[in-house]
Formats: sequence, C-alpha cells, structure tokens
Amino acid sequence: MTADRLSATFAALADPTRRAILARLAGGEASVKELAEPFKMTLPAVSKHLKVLERAGLIVRARDAQWRPCRLEAAPLKDVASWLEEYRRFWEQSFDRLNQYLHELRDKEHENESDHKQ
Amino acid sequence: MTADRLSATFAALADPTRRAILARLAGGEASVKELAEPFKMTLPAVSKHLKVLERAGLIVRARDAQWRPCRLEAAPLKDVASWLEEYRRFWEQSFDRLNQYLHELRDKEHENESDHKQ
Repeated sequence: MTADRLSATFAALADPTRRAILARLAGGEASVKELAEPFKMTLPAVSKHLKVLERAGLIVRARDAQWRPCRLEAAPLKDVASWLEEYRRFWEQSFDRLNQYLHELRDKEHENESDHKQ
Repeated sequence: MTADRLSATFAALADPTRRAILARLAGGEASVKELAEPFKMTLPAVSKHLKVLERAGLIVRARDAQWRPCRLEAAPLKDVASWLEEYRRFWEQSFDRLNQYLHELRDKEHENESDHKQ
C-alpha cells in the first residue's frame, strides 16, 4: 500500500454522507436507489459519493446483476487501523494521566475528611 | 464530537506530509523549523500544513515559548479508532475466510499425498 492509497482512504472518509453510506452497507449490500433514500439526495449526487468510495476501494459494485448492488470492502479500513496503532499509546497515556489525577483528587478528599474528623 | 469534527480529522490525515509531521511529533515536540528540515519544504508550506493539523485538534502549539514547539494531540485519533471499531468485524471476517481457505488447501494437499502413498 502506498502513502497515496492511505490518503485516498482518508479523503473518502472525510465526508459524513460517505461515512453514513458505509454504515448502511455494514448492514448488507444495497442498490444506489436504496442508498439514496435515507439521505433525500438525488441519484447523481449519491453516485458521485459512491465513485469516491469505489476509487478508494471502500466499496465494490457488482458487475453482473442489473441493479449493481454496492458492498462494503473493509481492507482499506484495516490499513487505517494499522496506521492508527502507532498512536494508540498516546491516547492511552492521556487516559492514564486523567485516571491518575482522579485518584489523586479522591485521595485528597479522603485526607480532608480525615482532617475534619480529628 | 460532531460528524464534522471527524470529517476535519480525516481531511487533515488525507495528506502524506501531514501524516509524516504527526509521525515526527510522535517522537517528541518540535519547532516549525525542525519539522520543515526533513521535507525540504519552505517554512510557509510547513506552516500551512500545521494550521490544518491544529484546526483538526491533532497538534497544539505552545503559546509561551518563543520557538512555539508543536505537540501531538491524540484525542482526535482516538475518535477515529472508535469509529473504526464498528468495522473491525469485516476485516477480521475476511481474514477468517482466507485462513479457512488456506486450511482447506493444506488438508487437500495432505489427502493427495495419502493417495500417492496408497
């Protein structure tokens, strides 16, 4: 996978309608007409989004069936997940720091309660 | 987090130079000058990329220090990871299917070997 392939995946995902289309396809394959319905979009507008998703390899369209259903392809998402793994330690560290702070806060409160009792 | 925030994150990540800047900052904070060096880019070109990353909340720039070092902020990446989780089962399924196919292939080869021995 080249860097540009990952860029194409990220660019395709940078749109709420395209992400909603993927979420719909996660529930099973669908035709362009079925995909257009919930968005109150014209068929050409939906087709344009589908082309972006198709070029990024995030969906495939059946060639044989007349209604050409769209299907989710998860391989590019797996590549995004692999890319993200390198950064996981950063948000887990942030969570650890927050967790530590909350514990310190609680300990301090307990100390204050003890002070009051004395 | 709104859908647009996730779109801004994906758009910011849809560029190999910006991802390389994040990779550099994963190793520690750096000044604009330090970030510009490996890319052989002009400072204004790097600044433009940094602004995109900053608006997406992927980096923060120190306000006090004169050299205003950039630091990685992982929170938006964590949101991307959460979004991705919904799709994990799809690429794991694909892997399971490939794995199953390879096992079937191996079993078939073993059968063929047994046939030859008889």
